[in-house]
Amino acid sequence: MGDRMVRFGIIGAAGIARKICRAIGLAPNATLSAIGSRSKEKALKFASDNGLSREVKIYGCYEAVLDDPAIDVVYIPLPTSLHLHWAVLAARNKKHVLLEKPVALNVADLDKILEACESNGVQFMDGTMWMHHPRTAKMKEFLSDQHNFGQLKSVHSASCYKVDSNFLANDIRVKPDLDGLGVLGDIGWYCIRSILFAADFELPKKVMTLPNPVLSESGVVLSCGCSLFWDDGKVATFYSSFLTNLCENMTAIGTNGTLHLTDFIIPYIEKEACFYTDSKSWFIDLMTGWEPLPEKHNVPTDLPQEVHMVREFSNLVKEIKENGSKPEKKWPTISRKTQLVLDAAKASLDQGFKVVEVGQ
Amino acid sequence: MGDRMVRFGIIGAAGIARKICRAIGLAPNATLSAIGSRSKEKALKFASDNGLSREVKIYGCYEAVLDDPAIDVVYIPLPTSLHLHWAVLAARNKKHVLLEKPVALNVADLDKILEACESNGVQFMDGTMWMHHPRTAKMKEFLSDQHNFGQLKSVHSASCYKVDSNFLANDIRVKPDLDGLGVLGDIGWYCIRSILFAADFELPKKVMTLPNPVLSESGVVLSCGCSLFWDDGKVATFYSSFLTNLCENMTAIGTNGTLHLTDFIIPYIEKEACFYTDSKSWFIDLMTGWEPLPEKHNVPTDLPQEVHMVREFSNLVKEIKENGSKPEKKWPTISRKTQLVLDAAKASLDQGFKVVEVGQ
Repeated sequence: MGDRMVRFGIIGAAGIARKICRAIGLAPNATLSAIGSRSKEKALKFASDNGLSREVKIYGCYEAVLDDPAIDVVYIPLPTSLHLHWAVLAARNKKHVLLEKPVALNVADLDKILEACESNGVQFMDGTMWMHHPRTAKMKEFLSDQHNFGQLKSVHSASCYKVDSNFLANDIRVKPDLDGLGVLGDIGWYCIRSILFAADFELPKKVMTLPNPVLSESGVVLSCGCSLFWDDGKVATFYSSFLTNLCENMTAIGTNGTLHLTDFIIPYIEKEACFYTDSKSWFIDLMTGWEPLPEKHNVPTDLPQEVHMVREFSNLVKEIKENGSKPEKKWPTISRKTQLVLDAAKASLDQGFKVVEVGQ
Repeated sequence: MGDRMVRFGIIGAAGIARKICRAIGLAPNATLSAIGSRSKEKALKFASDNGLSREVKIYGCYEAVLDDPAIDVVYIPLPTSLHLHWAVLAARNKKHVLLEKPVALNVADLDKILEACESNGVQFMDGTMWMHHPRTAKMKEFLSDQHNFGQLKSVHSASCYKVDSNFLANDIRVKPDLDGLGVLGDIGWYCIRSILFAADFELPKKVMTLPNPVLSESGVVLSCGCSLFWDDGKVATFYSSFLTNLCENMTAIGTNGTLHLTDFIIPYIEKEACFYTDSKSWFIDLMTGWEPLPEKHNVPTDLPQEVHMVREFSNLVKEIKENGSKPEKKWPTISRKTQLVLDAAKASLDQGFKVVEVGQ
């Protein structure tokens, strides 16, 4: 393959596909080869709306993308309930799979997808973009610093945005048959991921969804809180909602330090993102102020976070295709842990806020 | 009384008394008249450590302060278990009562204190200093803004600091006989107050302390999370700990806006404090950033927040003494609501994390 670009096909013309379309265009090692939608008309409209080159093939169905031998990777932004079918089919067709979150309706479905990927030697990664921002690597450095952060004790994340009545009536994220996980699967996913990230991906032992969630008429959760517990005393809470102003806070509190940011999912601006740290903070005499004051860390980035994601995924694909490497296990492992916690949160919600053990 | 200063007596030479000592000195309408400790020696040491003027009377017991007719106000920084006795006695001696938080071991005790204050016509206020910072009034304006903040949906507060082994062995805040409320009463108090503040002091209906608290050997809570629920669907969580790095975050999320700050109890610096607001935030096209960006509000203050508190309290006392006004009910009402939630949190903890109804 050499300097050849990794060739992407997209199945489904969802809104998020527009962003990945642009990201594939900006990534130095990826190119968009095909777009497939449920009708050729839809696919053509997507191509025209997004100014796609005439070289991008336009398919009026998803299967054609999977059958196209000139495609290396399939990006799947379909409703969650369709992931199992299409991701497994993609893997069987030897396509590497970049799958939107939430990756599956439950871990049993995800395991079928991961099994298909593994047995076909293809890479799996979910579409959690913020994981790939250089800021995230910098935050990881701080969280791993025993001296300045110490041992993690507590995490709180919030992920909210306000939807309109059209969303509540029509969006796939509130259709029980398409995406029964509601806000938990959509942006709760990010909260869970951020908590696992802070905990160095050590799974919590137990999860309890908090009373007073808001459900839609059809029973899909629109807003709820959740708490997570580890055996060593670590705790976490998160709040996710479709019904409030935008909020993307995350705070990790350690024995020696605190990490804090307020735009963890989509940074305020593309070219630079920041986070704050406190370390061994205390009060000055008579508690008239803090010492030291928190530190602001600015992390510039040459590429938007989703381009980092596409580039990293493409690199892994090239490694497999060119050097016969095995697929990188880190990404499916992280996806699976996120899904396990999501499943436990959903089970707790469905069981009237019982404490639920997280699966393995 | 005219321009005469309101005369304070302090009973107990606790660390926090040093701060109030300074505040009384800086307040334009207050003066320190007496300090009483359990021994004259202790009181003399306090006077010398804090450079008190020779005019300040030094008493070797608390009673002498309460008996001194030249004292208008008694400030009580004693361990919580002693509040009932000394605050009631102060009120009976017609002293206005500035009482450190947590104000009582439970609301039944607090009601006896408030009854004594009311029947003796004296003002009651608790020592929650941040309530009096001009920043708090500015935040209130934002939270009351239907257009820019909307309806409150969720609050999260965290209040933590790391104690040393000496504190864990000796401090009154971890002695079951002196302050059985532990971290909940100490800094959990501030979290509860901040949540009530955001909710315009509407009491939650139910409270549930979260599993996995950390208790001391003697059974006093050192670290725990808690969740609060209102009938209209509002929710809140807080986390308070003696075992982590300093953290004082508060976030209130409304339908149209978000309020956020990270030093809500003790501002980073004395002369200015800030908070952040988002209002009707959304993503720019392709979710490449936020619009509008959060706004930082700097609130300068001519006086430290505890001086604002002493000044406000002294003004109320002057109103009563000079103009025959009735004591201001706002402050005892707020204290009582905070105590009601604190009691429910403690009850939930003691009952194995049951959902507990908040008393009236």
